[in-house]
Amino acid sequence: MTTYSAPVEDMMFLFEHLRDNKNYNEIERYKEINTDLVKDILQEAAKINQELIFPLAKVGDENPCVYENGVVRTPPGYKEVYSKFIEDGWTSLSCDPKYGGQGMPKTVSTFFEEMLSSSSLSFKLYSELSLGAYNCILHHGSEEIKNRYLPKIVEGKWSGTMCLTEPQCGTDLGLIKTKAIKDGNSSYKLNGQKIFITSGDHDLTENIIHLVLARIPDAPKGTKGISLFLVPKFWVYDDGTIGSRNGVDTSSIETKMGIKGSSTCVLNFENATGYMIGPENKGLSSMFTMMNLERIVVGIQGLGISETAYQTALNYSKERKQGKANNNISTDTDLIIKHADIRRSLMNMKSIIEGERSLAFWMSQQVDVSLNHPETSVRKKASEIVGLLTPVIKSFFTDMGMEITNEAIQIFGGYGFTKDQGVEQLFRDNRITPIYEGTNSVQAMDLVFRKITEKNVFESFVKNIDDEIEISRKNEKLNRHITNVFELKDTLLNFTRWIDPKGNTPKNDISASCNDYLKFFGYFCLAFIWLKILRKSYENYKSNKEFYDEKINTGNYYFDKIIPRADSHYRSAISGSKFTMGAKFN
Amino acid sequence: MTTYSAPVEDMMFLFEHLRDNKNYNEIERYKEINTDLVKDILQEAAKINQELIFPLAKVGDENPCVYENGVVRTPPGYKEVYSKFIEDGWTSLSCDPKYGGQGMPKTVSTFFEEMLSSSSLSFKLYSELSLGAYNCILHHGSEEIKNRYLPKIVEGKWSGTMCLTEPQCGTDLGLIKTKAIKDGNSSYKLNGQKIFITSGDHDLTENIIHLVLARIPDAPKGTKGISLFLVPKFWVYDDGTIGSRNGVDTSSIETKMGIKGSSTCVLNFENATGYMIGPENKGLSSMFTMMNLERIVVGIQGLGISETAYQTALNYSKERKQGKANNNISTDTDLIIKHADIRRSLMNMKSIIEGERSLAFWMSQQVDVSLNHPETSVRKKASEIVGLLTPVIKSFFTDMGMEITNEAIQIFGGYGFTKDQGVEQLFRDNRITPIYEGTNSVQAMDLVFRKITEKNVFESFVKNIDDEIEISRKNEKLNRHITNVFELKDTLLNFTRWIDPKGNTPKNDISASCNDYLKFFGYFCLAFIWLKILRKSYENYKSNKEFYDEKINTGNYYFDKIIPRADSHYRSAISGSKFTMGAKFN
Repeated sequence: MTTYSAPVEDMMFLFEHLRDNKNYNEIERYKEINTDLVKDILQEAAKINQELIFPLAKVGDENPCVYENGVVRTPPGYKEVYSKFIEDGWTSLSCDPKYGGQGMPKTVSTFFEEMLSSSSLSFKLYSELSLGAYNCILHHGSEEIKNRYLPKIVEGKWSGTMCLTEPQCGTDLGLIKTKAIKDGNSSYKLNGQKIFITSGDHDLTENIIHLVLARIPDAPKGTKGISLFLVPKFWVYDDGTIGSRNGVDTSSIETKMGIKGSSTCVLNFENATGYMIGPENKGLSSMFTMMNLERIVVGIQGLGISETAYQTALNYSKERKQGKANNNISTDTDLIIKHADIRRSLMNMKSIIEGERSLAFWMSQQVDVSLNHPETSVRKKASEIVGLLTPVIKSFFTDMGMEITNEAIQIFGGYGFTKDQGVEQLFRDNRITPIYEGTNSVQAMDLVFRKITEKNVFESFVKNIDDEIEISRKNEKLNRHITNVFELKDTLLNFTRWIDPKGNTPKNDISASCNDYLKFFGYFCLAFIWLKILRKSYENYKSNKEFYDEKINTGNYYFDKIIPRADSHYRSAISGSKFTMGAKFN
Repeated sequence: MTTYSAPVEDMMFLFEHLRDNKNYNEIERYKEINTDLVKDILQEAAKINQELIFPLAKVGDENPCVYENGVVRTPPGYKEVYSKFIEDGWTSLSCDPKYGGQGMPKTVSTFFEEMLSSSSLSFKLYSELSLGAYNCILHHGSEEIKNRYLPKIVEGKWSGTMCLTEPQCGTDLGLIKTKAIKDGNSSYKLNGQKIFITSGDHDLTENIIHLVLARIPDAPKGTKGISLFLVPKFWVYDDGTIGSRNGVDTSSIETKMGIKGSSTCVLNFENATGYMIGPENKGLSSMFTMMNLERIVVGIQGLGISETAYQTALNYSKERKQGKANNNISTDTDLIIKHADIRRSLMNMKSIIEGERSLAFWMSQQVDVSLNHPETSVRKKASEIVGLLTPVIKSFFTDMGMEITNEAIQIFGGYGFTKDQGVEQLFRDNRITPIYEGTNSVQAMDLVFRKITEKNVFESFVKNIDDEIEISRKNEKLNRHITNVFELKDTLLNFTRWIDPKGNTPKNDISASCNDYLKFFGYFCLAFIWLKILRKSYENYKSNKEFYDEKINTGNYYFDKIIPRADSHYRSAISGSKFTMGAKFN
């Protein structure tokens, strides 16, 4: 059986001790978000996740969404838990109080995102896209639109979707065909088909607010001619009440290898009324407000599923007896957790997961600064760091999620392959995360061709590392870790110079190496954050020796055992692309 | 849709040009197995695999085995194809003519094993375990047993199983509880439960011959007190006809994440009559005759599934248009195969798959020598090399199978996650291969604690490498590859000295590093075999430029892009196990 107990202690460690972003701590409204309050929230969050949402994971896998007579039904129990979920206000956690939200910072809501991902990704997705829609409308919608739609979305009574993909276009949004034509009012009529629409239809909310990319007549070709529209499933009158159906129909749902409790829809827009969000032909950039935050959240999904896989495998390894460990001279068999090779697997998971959680927390502070700091220049700088790390978190966390769920199955042996144990579901559920919201290849290209080309952004990121190294020098126990991070940084700089699209490296060499570069970047970021965790662990050591001993042990493991992987990506990349491009594939 | 066309050309290249084992070429009975004959066989094999067996993969996934009223039914179509399969004599391909076999060498039958794995692993398993049983009975059964059981197994009318695992014992067979008590005749009565029994029950054959590990009264504890028994599902009379049911019942079948067309059974033995195979309490070593060959075959499964994943992804990348490649200055989008990052994925797959196929072929020659060479000392030496490489092939090929099927899904983007396309099934089907027949961790421990400790065996393996390096020196185009293999060999020797259980390295350091050692070994073996392929490609270049250009390109890719991974395993391993063992996991 899968096991999940929310890692509140680890989260509180981060909130208490890694909250060292000066700009974050200057944000007035977050000054009152103190340790006690956060602990209360996380404990409540743990409760609903462990008790109500976690059991939905298996239910959803065994009773996938059903599409019948044009209607999508979610798995048994989803409706009841969703009601409780919105009644307790969980959809509004990080939203603006102006629209009914609780105004919590990302530093807190990201923990909640992780817990939800650990409990049931399928269930989570119904509210996750609502938050995406909320962000997009909040930043690009008119006052009228915001006032009409946001309160219901924040309350969770209405949900949201992102409608980008069409049969002929996934990664390449320039190929979008859906059309939008002015209908004489302030609205448009939309026609076209969208596929792979998460939560595109379901029975949990009264209305569904679709955010749809489409082309207006005479729009420029490619991505420069795409506009964004808000298309509700049901008409919404001026007073906010709901009318009859709009022209959006579900023609089918996908049968998938995982997240079977989440409905993935084919939506047909037939003269559907929509309202333009943001300026004409600038839809893609508005949508990216939603996409960018979503991408971080997808990374958190990978982290969350990894945590459940780890806990489940750990639990099993404390129950299953098999063979004898090296130091056993008795005739009894040992629990498998005594075996060095099982411990290696568990420590791989643990050191990566705790590093990721810390990096996500560090990043959340940057997100909060980028959204809420009073000074524009500070916001901008934080926003750039967020932009730089978004593809890394999205891809690295989800790829590691595959490694970790895979290792968890392996620890179960033959039982891991059976449905009964549930651990294989985590492996299947996680498999979507390296794909959706931009495949991990697209993320890697985004990192290389768009993000690192902003020299000052990259330099400002490196300054964070240098600062950490500088402070850590005070503790000589960190000497070897500093040396490690320093060497890695050196390679990162060389790698970055080599792969810089503005440099002399042939473009195919660069394209063929983006994936390796991103992986290197990921391992590097975790090394940086582990250095910080180690420093904080020594600083606070006396307050909780048991906790910090384990942290220090885990950090050391990361430096010894995981970091050696990074270099191979560099060496593979710089060998160029002669044979990659030379293949005939006949 | 998945795609499979048997890689006969590549196989024939290996059979014609990599058949350079002097001892193999001395085996009298294989001298007549010439190129034309093998080509005919492979073409016929390709036909039945592509046309009849391949379609069963999807059928089996969508209509898993059914257990009802004590009876197991295979998926629709399995029965018909199995009849044709045995009618055409495919079960007898590598079996001894004395029992109705065709006496083909492993060099040929291994290709067939690969094709079957590529087509439908579930279907394959019904005959695969029969071959395992055949081998075990052939080597350890009495003449009477052999004459009674082998002809029907070779003919495919009866199938076989290996019954090792029990609820409390998977990896650790010392915990076996099933009991066998003499019944006064030459037979025994068996009582106990066996789980995870592949093809333990089904409706394809008239009888099922179980090979069962059990304990006789007063047997020594642990693995030294296990005997092996032959237990038929139906009684077999002296004249070979079948009687009533023996005391073996199926109490359930597993619901699994993959290979759903294969029945995985819980078998209850209740006073089941069995016949001892081999000597008392030496059952494990007899079973290992079966296990060892099976382990190689499981490696081949990983290779076979990888090939289908590669072909399927390649095919899709030649159909799907998305985005523009670097050299595209037109306004049209490109097929995704033009993109450097997609090519990287495909080349990763291709260079690993072709290396594996070649290594498997090289190994098959050793297997044939170990079984059929007239001189005992030559047989022994070959057998030792086979023993050394068996865990490598089992683990490395199946782990790479996970990487390759994972990458294949990624190339499909969102479509890869849906059931329609079928590529996700390969990922699920392959997931059992790193688990069964001894988990990959067990293989790694076998390699380190049993195989490399035989110094002369390891040295004899290294001599193969040295010989290859020596011959390759004649071609200066191979200089950089030789340098590469030479450096890798150097690291392998250091790594082996470090990990040698007879040396000074702490035992936990060794146990925690077996997995890294095996991975290093795997990458090294592929480098060795690619050096050989490259040499042969240059030697035969003029006869088929197109073919050899692609081979040379692929080999170069392996050296540039894949080899850098090896070193990270060495570096990770030698950092020891202090933090692996130090974790508290509270």
